[in-house]
Amino acid sequence: MKLVRYGNPGKEKPGLIDADGKLRDLSAVLKDIGPDQLGDAALAKLRKLKTDKLPLVKGSPRMGSPVSGVGKFIAIGLNYADHAAESGLPIPKEPIVFMKATTCIQGPNDPVMLPKGSVKTDWEVELGVVIGTRARYVSQKEALNHVAGYCTINDVSEREYQIERGGTWDKGKGCDTFGPIGPWLVTRDEVPNPQKLGMWLEVNGQRMQTGSTKTMIFSVAKIISYVSQFMTLEPGDVITTGTPPGVGMGMKPPVFLKKGDQIALGIEGLGEQRQLVVPFKL
Amino acid sequence: MKLVRYGNPGKEKPGLIDADGKLRDLSAVLKDIGPDQLGDAALAKLRKLKTDKLPLVKGSPRMGSPVSGVGKFIAIGLNYADHAAESGLPIPKEPIVFMKATTCIQGPNDPVMLPKGSVKTDWEVELGVVIGTRARYVSQKEALNHVAGYCTINDVSEREYQIERGGTWDKGKGCDTFGPIGPWLVTRDEVPNPQKLGMWLEVNGQRMQTGSTKTMIFSVAKIISYVSQFMTLEPGDVITTGTPPGVGMGMKPPVFLKKGDQIALGIEGLGEQRQLVVPFKL
Repeated sequence: MKLVRYGNPGKEKPGLIDADGKLRDLSAVLKDIGPDQLGDAALAKLRKLKTDKLPLVKGSPRMGSPVSGVGKFIAIGLNYADHAAESGLPIPKEPIVFMKATTCIQGPNDPVMLPKGSVKTDWEVELGVVIGTRARYVSQKEALNHVAGYCTINDVSEREYQIERGGTWDKGKGCDTFGPIGPWLVTRDEVPNPQKLGMWLEVNGQRMQTGSTKTMIFSVAKIISYVSQFMTLEPGDVITTGTPPGVGMGMKPPVFLKKGDQIALGIEGLGEQRQLVVPFKL
Repeated sequence: MKLVRYGNPGKEKPGLIDADGKLRDLSAVLKDIGPDQLGDAALAKLRKLKTDKLPLVKGSPRMGSPVSGVGKFIAIGLNYADHAAESGLPIPKEPIVFMKATTCIQGPNDPVMLPKGSVKTDWEVELGVVIGTRARYVSQKEALNHVAGYCTINDVSEREYQIERGGTWDKGKGCDTFGPIGPWLVTRDEVPNPQKLGMWLEVNGQRMQTGSTKTMIFSVAKIISYVSQFMTLEPGDVITTGTPPGVGMGMKPPVFLKKGDQIALGIEGLGEQRQLVVPFKL
């Protein structure tokens, strides 16, 4: 299933994209798509619905993040060898874990806002993993059973804040609007192999990133197992799993986002995002 | 006011500690103590209650974290010059920001669990700040107006995970049970100067940390203003503001927590915590 949340910010309704690509409303069936709706039993029940009986949604409403109530937004750094190289950093021996502030989460096509005074805002197309059931010290073999589904994420990053302002990366990763998620939460039964997904990102129509999850250093299963040794993963937690080469910081000379830029990105089977870059506004 | 949440984990009720130190139930007045109850108007309304009319709670129930629904658990590193020195690290030029997983939050006297295989679990008494109203790009002068109140926090840390496992500090800061908060959320009207609070921590009755918030490098107002440049602070967000010297990692030779250890800590006017250190258990 391709689950979505559509409507105005903070007022999103649950929906799904049917086999014909049409948006159908799930409000009569579900209160929301969040921690309480992501377990195997809840998703199995949804799967039994006759989608052609669900009301069609008219028009083209805004899409929100397909998951609400995200408790933790966990991120993996330098998880593609070529990206580590372009960042001038060694290939990590074990996964690099950092956190994005949950307040940065937004819909897939909402504008990305440059923070006040920002001169180094950058893009990162990434495979997102949405946890469906609690995971603590899970084995790599069991790990994918804890996944509700997958999604496209732009791990927007301010490189000066991330790297030049001291301390951890978190400072440059959680600015408002830095976490576009969606458009779809594609349930795991429809993603038989998360390590075989093409991914791309363009800025103003120019291809910047072309990659595949097959070149990840640490697989999704490894990441979930690993992170679950350091913190309990709860339903609704999101892990964004690192970006392939082609970020602005890695260009010679570096290229960063500026007002008016158009970002487009997508992952095979998980849908596409479009973001306009806008100046800071309170 | 000294606000509390008491009762079994996940079933806590709101309460307050009256002028005589007695626990009184607020269930008839409030649903919980969380983001919706922390704004100035909500707290002003509470302050008008005649506390002697509120029902007394019998016995000595468990205390939970005095704030529920914490969206972000933000932490400041090396915020006391002497602690930076004992950690062998330079005094930071600007605040070091990292994040603790919200799943690590627990009551002030709940046992602290050593992660599986952990050999370097350490303590850190810290002043906690609970945000009451949204803060984005706030000035230092305005910053304290966004505070609902203050609390005692033990920023429990696994030093191997934090420092020796690659990447950011987040890996060693958010393990389950690593965030005891409370017992009280003391509203800001009762803490006229958050930069003048004595603080202490003992392990098995031996004094390890003795400090005061007056020796912070970056004040609470500075921290709130600073963090609000990188992410929007929402009601219910908690910032833990760094620890004075005396952590286990800084001893010669280093001392870390082991099964059966008893931790006690407190901050002037904000109440005390007691934690038994227990082995890993799923």
